[in-house]
Amino acid sequence: MKNPSFADIAARYRVSNGTRFRLADMKPHDPWGASLKASADELMSDGLARLTDLQERLYAQDRWSILLVFQAMDAAGKDSTIKHVMSGVNPQGCEVHAFKAPSSEELDHDFLWRTSRLLPRRGHIGIFNRSYYEETLVVRVHQNILARQQLPPALLTKDIWRERFEDINAYERYLSRQGVVIRKFFLHVSKEEQRLRFLKRLDEADKHWKFSIADVGERAHFTEYMQAYEDTIRHTATAWAPWHVIPADRKWFTRLAVAATIVDTIESLDPRFPSADPKVKEELKKIRAALEAEVKAVKAKSEARTK
Amino acid sequence: MKNPSFADIAARYRVSNGTRFRLADMKPHDPWGASLKASADELMSDGLARLTDLQERLYAQDRWSILLVFQAMDAAGKDSTIKHVMSGVNPQGCEVHAFKAPSSEELDHDFLWRTSRLLPRRGHIGIFNRSYYEETLVVRVHQNILARQQLPPALLTKDIWRERFEDINAYERYLSRQGVVIRKFFLHVSKEEQRLRFLKRLDEADKHWKFSIADVGERAHFTEYMQAYEDTIRHTATAWAPWHVIPADRKWFTRLAVAATIVDTIESLDPRFPSADPKVKEELKKIRAALEAEVKAVKAKSEARTK
Repeated sequence: MKNPSFADIAARYRVSNGTRFRLADMKPHDPWGASLKASADELMSDGLARLTDLQERLYAQDRWSILLVFQAMDAAGKDSTIKHVMSGVNPQGCEVHAFKAPSSEELDHDFLWRTSRLLPRRGHIGIFNRSYYEETLVVRVHQNILARQQLPPALLTKDIWRERFEDINAYERYLSRQGVVIRKFFLHVSKEEQRLRFLKRLDEADKHWKFSIADVGERAHFTEYMQAYEDTIRHTATAWAPWHVIPADRKWFTRLAVAATIVDTIESLDPRFPSADPKVKEELKKIRAALEAEVKAVKAKSEARTK
Repeated sequence: MKNPSFADIAARYRVSNGTRFRLADMKPHDPWGASLKASADELMSDGLARLTDLQERLYAQDRWSILLVFQAMDAAGKDSTIKHVMSGVNPQGCEVHAFKAPSSEELDHDFLWRTSRLLPRRGHIGIFNRSYYEETLVVRVHQNILARQQLPPALLTKDIWRERFEDINAYERYLSRQGVVIRKFFLHVSKEEQRLRFLKRLDEADKHWKFSIADVGERAHFTEYMQAYEDTIRHTATAWAPWHVIPADRKWFTRLAVAATIVDTIESLDPRFPSADPKVKEELKKIRAALEAEVKAVKAKSEARTK
């Protein structure tokens, strides 16, 4: 079998119009993906090499920035995917921000405040490990969190989720007009696979720090979370900021599909090293001549001395 | 003549639907306003007293925040209006941010980035002395500034101003849903009055620091600026974030009209001190009893000693 292109892999899981999206149509395990197992290492190392090159060009060009949003249930593999896909990239042009429960200063502002400040600069890749989407996920499943947001009661209406979707869409459209290319990943893990991974964490001492009893408690809300994800994707999958619903029951495939999507995204921007204009080139020539002359002068001097 | 209410003064200059707005309908000098001269001091001190009280309640209630945006030509009186209207307010709940030419870090982000970070917290009043509106004013008059914003060339289309208006409206609607009450002031000064104020600055040594030859150069673009203001107000005056076009040829009146508008805005929110719930009240009673008992104990001890 011929390997699929990264564009093919990216397209398979992309949702750029959420109107008819149903989570039931996207499985945590994709047999088509599984069929790539034999060539996975080869594809992955090609992907990482291309990513390293693309990021260097993106950085040098200094026009576009890339924002990658990761959302998932616990143990779906957000952290390990970010680690495996982005480790080859120069950290000078790539920052990861993880968003936990908001601080009191953050709650005292609009919900986009804490993430907006950390948006990637031009030429940079920014990764949000969780994001403002928590506002329509955990906050929707646990509405007591909404009560703690200190919003004026007059603004807590039945329209609040529709308004948040509308606001997020307008915000992402704005960002895309400012040169921020947004891709959103939902790592789609099954409840059964989550259970197995939790059990494994209990067996491995070096994974204990990643574990809390609260994570297990959230399993009771798994179905509600899936409904919140479906509704969120349905309302916020747009042409300018698509969701990628990545099967997450096989870690190696999650990583491959995410890497392929990122490479495909940056490649489509065709970032190039800026070419110096003729004046600058003339200047560079003179600098080269001066630097070479320096060496000659030093040589001549030392020869004169040894005579 | 009976004094007008602050609500009347605020309403007179409010534009909350820009569709038919024409700057020519709003004069830099308003004879109706001038007729208030005799009672101006009385009105102003009433306004400042109410503002001090309102701000304290707003702060204690900790739900709404107020964002006041000031835009104007040079010498229209932005700085002195802010100084005179806000000086009585507790600075713990009020911050002023002046935005000059953006830094290279700021240019490396979307245009709302630098102002978003400085939005007021809940319960606070935030004042923007200039703002993201510079993006459709100075950047529109001097389009070479746009070229320096490092946007990907593909995004520099003829729709850019329409898009910026659309993005700003969506952003302000979002903020208003988050509890940020936005009022935007255009201090409308005439070109002739600006000329007189510039001449006065030249005569007063303590005003020299406020003066640069560039300011005078901008006078050549006065008409273009007025067109840019008109178009901006026409497209961004909304029910959730109205513009107030304040006559600015008489400084005393500018201050009065701005103060009246701010008082009217906060008053309409009816901010109240939070009332403690019965349990807390019971607790406070006990604390009072304990504090009073302390004094009695000390007294009894000292009496025992002197016996």
